[in-house]
Amino acid sequence: MKVAGRWYRTIALGANGWTVEVIDQTALPETFVVAPLTSVADVVAAIRSMMVRGAPLIGVAAAYGIALAMRADPSDDHLGTASRALLATRPTAVNLRWAVERMTALVGSVAPEDREEGAYRAAADLAEMDVKTCLAIGAHGAAILRQRWDDVGRARTINVLTHCNAGWLAAVDWGTALAPIYLAHDSGLPVHVWVDETRPRNQGLLTAWELTAHGVPCTVVADNASGHLMRLGQVDICLVGTDRTTRNGDVANKIGTYLKALAAADNQIPFYVAVPSPSIDWSLADGNAVPIEERGGNELGFGPDVRVANPAFDITPARLVTGLLTDRGLTEASEAGLARLFPERRS
Amino acid sequence: MKVAGRWYRTIALGANGWTVEVIDQTALPETFVVAPLTSVADVVAAIRSMMVRGAPLIGVAAAYGIALAMRADPSDDHLGTASRALLATRPTAVNLRWAVERMTALVGSVAPEDREEGAYRAAADLAEMDVKTCLAIGAHGAAILRQRWDDVGRARTINVLTHCNAGWLAAVDWGTALAPIYLAHDSGLPVHVWVDETRPRNQGLLTAWELTAHGVPCTVVADNASGHLMRLGQVDICLVGTDRTTRNGDVANKIGTYLKALAAADNQIPFYVAVPSPSIDWSLADGNAVPIEERGGNELGFGPDVRVANPAFDITPARLVTGLLTDRGLTEASEAGLARLFPERRS
Repeated sequence: MKVAGRWYRTIALGANGWTVEVIDQTALPETFVVAPLTSVADVVAAIRSMMVRGAPLIGVAAAYGIALAMRADPSDDHLGTASRALLATRPTAVNLRWAVERMTALVGSVAPEDREEGAYRAAADLAEMDVKTCLAIGAHGAAILRQRWDDVGRARTINVLTHCNAGWLAAVDWGTALAPIYLAHDSGLPVHVWVDETRPRNQGLLTAWELTAHGVPCTVVADNASGHLMRLGQVDICLVGTDRTTRNGDVANKIGTYLKALAAADNQIPFYVAVPSPSIDWSLADGNAVPIEERGGNELGFGPDVRVANPAFDITPARLVTGLLTDRGLTEASEAGLARLFPERRS
Repeated sequence: MKVAGRWYRTIALGANGWTVEVIDQTALPETFVVAPLTSVADVVAAIRSMMVRGAPLIGVAAAYGIALAMRADPSDDHLGTASRALLATRPTAVNLRWAVERMTALVGSVAPEDREEGAYRAAADLAEMDVKTCLAIGAHGAAILRQRWDDVGRARTINVLTHCNAGWLAAVDWGTALAPIYLAHDSGLPVHVWVDETRPRNQGLLTAWELTAHGVPCTVVADNASGHLMRLGQVDICLVGTDRTTRNGDVANKIGTYLKALAAADNQIPFYVAVPSPSIDWSLADGNAVPIEERGGNELGFGPDVRVANPAFDITPARLVTGLLTDRGLTEASEAGLARLFPERRS
């Protein structure tokens, strides 16, 4: 997407052809900085600190981490060490495991002298695949937004509520939950977005920054406000991302998502989850098995006198999800629904 | 309650016998300061700025505002002006209207030369009544907590979740939702409190400060976290206050309360609301008629580039409330339930 008139992706190679350049998301929205990563240790630190964040982007960053590792030392040992270090950064987003396993298998199958080139190519392929995936989600989701607009007789702006940031900053480009909004907006549909601030890290400010840069009207609210807005009829549709969706359609996403889904259900407001296929964990029967990251209490910002807990994700049960918006189209949040779209995964 | 070994109330007369001294809640939890209010304008400013806050305390502060007004000028005109200024400070908490109407009727019924003394006496009566009301709520509520403890075989700590601050800082002493916790704790029941930080004003930090000062273990979490905690079985009971409860049992309380009630219902966790009788609005059939204050967007703290909205309260429908914990005892959240406890109000 464009920042100040120039096209950016969240992750790309530098002019030297091997440095991995990322937008430093810990500096946003105040400052737009591109940071160079030159080693797998840099990538590990960038994922941990949330300089790069968002399930799709974490996956692609990890892939480039393998490429940087192979550039430094293409041995089997180093491939194993790099993979383990990357896998240990964050536990909830399944894209990380998906990308690292894919890269390890692919890179491990070729001779050491071909690994650097192969890893860079594979990482670039994953990045391109992510862009296509997001655009496909965007197209399917834009149709839903258009339908909502038709439902209200095209008489007014459609109000979308989103939580956290599942925009282009969370992916390589376009985003997952925000891709439909960008495409709908660009096609002339009047859309306004309610953005949960998303404590404790305030990723809602990233969402507001993105949307505003693209010209999409938005309003940030405290996470507490969404039930009230829904009760007053000020939300037409909820649209969020996911860090991991299990094969029954349970959705792990940023802490607080579950509360929004409850409020949407209580007010008969459709609640959609944008799910790129690499975020589906076919190995887990339901959300109870998803590891939930507990992050540092310092993220709340209260100082040492206040005892805090800081779980970073929660599980929204499939029964509260109106539909899963995947790159292959919309489906119901159930094992049958997912199996219909991904027949090759049917057990 | 005690602060650093000395007994305080949130509001009291100064040594000169007429200055109204309040704990400045905008300085807490960092700094404990007692601020003197010497005019009705001071009281108006203190309520608006949330130097004093919490429905019961706002009511008592307004009563003392009338007393300060009568001290300055006991005319009918000034009584009217002072009442209107106080009523205009905050729209949602009904205790304000209750206290001001009560004071105006009482003070207006005596000769101007007796008004100052009468107003101070009436304000002191309201303060004492609030303390008794909170203690009664505490006793009824402590029995519920004890029952929960019995339910788990007295084998472990009972985990209470609360939102905002409905402790002694929100009242004259003891608090509404926290009074049962203080009494239960003091009687030896092991209790731990999950405290929502309660954005955007972070009144959860006031709750944590109170509880910690009294020795009650507590943990502050982002508002987003409560659904997750409930899903994991880490919450035994929810206990919140109210700014106005309508005669059908709908509860206006701090923004976000509705989301907690939804999560409690979804996880079969009892959700109780502590309702001092002056917080019941018998004139309103249901919560849809409660005016919801929209506060300044600057409270979110994001600077002028971010468009924000800041509704300060929401409505929790009676159907999500397990019981109303009043000073007359526990009742179901319904018109019949309230009428049973307050037969003199039956229409």
